[in-house]
Amino acid sequence: MGGDHGPSVTVPAVFDFLRRDPDCTAILVGREEVLRPLLGPTQEFGARLRVHHASQVVEMHEPVASALRTKKDSSMRVMADLVKEGTANAALSAGNTGALMAISRFVLKTLPGIDRPAIASILPTARGHSYVLDLGANVDCSAEHLLQFGVMGSLLVSALEHRDRPTVGLLNIGEEDIKGNEIVKQAAELLKDSGLNFCGNVEGDDIWKGTADVVVCDGFVGNVVLKSSEGLAQMIARGLKEEFSRNLLTRLAAIMALPVIRAFKRRFDHRAYNGASLLGLKGIVFKSHGSADSYAFRCALERAAEAARQRLPEKIAARMAVLHPSINQIPDAA
Amino acid sequence: MGGDHGPSVTVPAVFDFLRRDPDCTAILVGREEVLRPLLGPTQEFGARLRVHHASQVVEMHEPVASALRTKKDSSMRVMADLVKEGTANAALSAGNTGALMAISRFVLKTLPGIDRPAIASILPTARGHSYVLDLGANVDCSAEHLLQFGVMGSLLVSALEHRDRPTVGLLNIGEEDIKGNEIVKQAAELLKDSGLNFCGNVEGDDIWKGTADVVVCDGFVGNVVLKSSEGLAQMIARGLKEEFSRNLLTRLAAIMALPVIRAFKRRFDHRAYNGASLLGLKGIVFKSHGSADSYAFRCALERAAEAARQRLPEKIAARMAVLHPSINQIPDAA
Repeated sequence: MGGDHGPSVTVPAVFDFLRRDPDCTAILVGREEVLRPLLGPTQEFGARLRVHHASQVVEMHEPVASALRTKKDSSMRVMADLVKEGTANAALSAGNTGALMAISRFVLKTLPGIDRPAIASILPTARGHSYVLDLGANVDCSAEHLLQFGVMGSLLVSALEHRDRPTVGLLNIGEEDIKGNEIVKQAAELLKDSGLNFCGNVEGDDIWKGTADVVVCDGFVGNVVLKSSEGLAQMIARGLKEEFSRNLLTRLAAIMALPVIRAFKRRFDHRAYNGASLLGLKGIVFKSHGSADSYAFRCALERAAEAARQRLPEKIAARMAVLHPSINQIPDAA
Repeated sequence: MGGDHGPSVTVPAVFDFLRRDPDCTAILVGREEVLRPLLGPTQEFGARLRVHHASQVVEMHEPVASALRTKKDSSMRVMADLVKEGTANAALSAGNTGALMAISRFVLKTLPGIDRPAIASILPTARGHSYVLDLGANVDCSAEHLLQFGVMGSLLVSALEHRDRPTVGLLNIGEEDIKGNEIVKQAAELLKDSGLNFCGNVEGDDIWKGTADVVVCDGFVGNVVLKSSEGLAQMIARGLKEEFSRNLLTRLAAIMALPVIRAFKRRFDHRAYNGASLLGLKGIVFKSHGSADSYAFRCALERAAEAARQRLPEKIAARMAVLHPSINQIPDAA
């Protein structure tokens, strides 16, 4: 029900998703009276598509505490319950990120060995794309938390990209071991001994160079970098647009340059990278960008489905049990 | 002597600077045998330009400890000594940033009331430009440090832009007071009571929107944001260039678009923003980007000269004395 456009975007995306992936089924969670008419008279997907009614909706800017306490029949809460009871293998929402994290954590709980869930996003790089976490769930992180982010990020890349031993970099203000604050220095030591393919410290520009497949940082730094990057890209785009529309001559140049600009946009199309993962929970929850269009939302659905196929939470729990043998390896019966 | 290009860039920049500002004199500090020939046979500037010999040079990637301990006759060290003894009113270097900060701090010391110096840079924004600090000198900051950065940044903008009460924003992961880590929350309280024109929390994208004249953050976050932004801008520039040089048609479009691209580059010309300020010292020290060309280096010279005219360190000390009346207001005789 969430996001800037609501079911008018998410429902067509689910149709596309089901057409392209005949093994999957989808449950639309939300107000039945809104969702049902959007399905139309056709029964194209039969039992593969159903609606699960939820009477409430968490608003985009609603405080987390209010969403958690007063909306026990929100689409978000009901969706998380469906994952917990095993009816759904993965959940995806384009709604309020803070509420989604709080509700998911409250309903699903964290995996053994994971202190805090983290949000991992995909960013385009000069070489392809990289995964960055945490992007805002945890503002004060210990070295052990950063290690856990490294483990979760590495397994996320393995699951979604089918790659063995992706490289993991630690975001810092210099490549040398002596740089950075105490927590980051300690995290580097833990990552070195973790068995992960740790490639050492990376700097801010390395995110875009694609130096590491996974970039680990605390949620404060990650959130600031992500928002700053969005702001810079917007400023550049707007600045170019203004220069191209300055007069008749520049407008002519714009027409000539249009295919080039379009090719460039395709190359760094952020819609293809939609679908942030809420990692570390006893269940799979993905977050779509609120402004996602139908194509972007489908990309996020495909990521969530792949994470479910690859049984990502079980793999994270197993890996944490190897790192910390005292942890109970088997997640609680969900 | 420092920077990627050394005196071949800095000497012509000094010539330009002296021609445009007849009230100023310049002292070139470095190897006389290198500098003297670059001055040529003309005595255009008479006593306004002189060379002060220093036998050593701090290398660009030399460890700070080595620069500080073994190079007591480096151009950087001698330059700081000239500021300390009052022979020079301001210093500018394009060399090793870490060494410049360490040497300046060792020679000049910090102002009363300032625990740690900070590095402030200017970034282009959609509205003009903003000042961001700290950009790498301090990785672990207390709330009081962030307050001091706010005071110094505000006075820097007043000095260089001749503006009363510039707005000061605190970099955070949300606009609400409850967001962020404990240090940032405490810093917001201190800034509210500081008498500065504090406009509250700002987020990563606000840096580029120009929401505040001064953006305050710790050196870890500031450094990561700065480097990440440089990396993103480079990736976008390179991506556009590649798309424009793909084939004959796109190359033709590139020729048509060239005046537009040039106008855009002029608008966000980072050279015009060259000259980061090492704030909080008993003396004025500026840092030029290592890759600065002659125009960029002159811009940094002009900033350093203006900070000296405005007696920036005295203003910072006076303001800190008002905030903390127990501090000895008068800097030690330099």
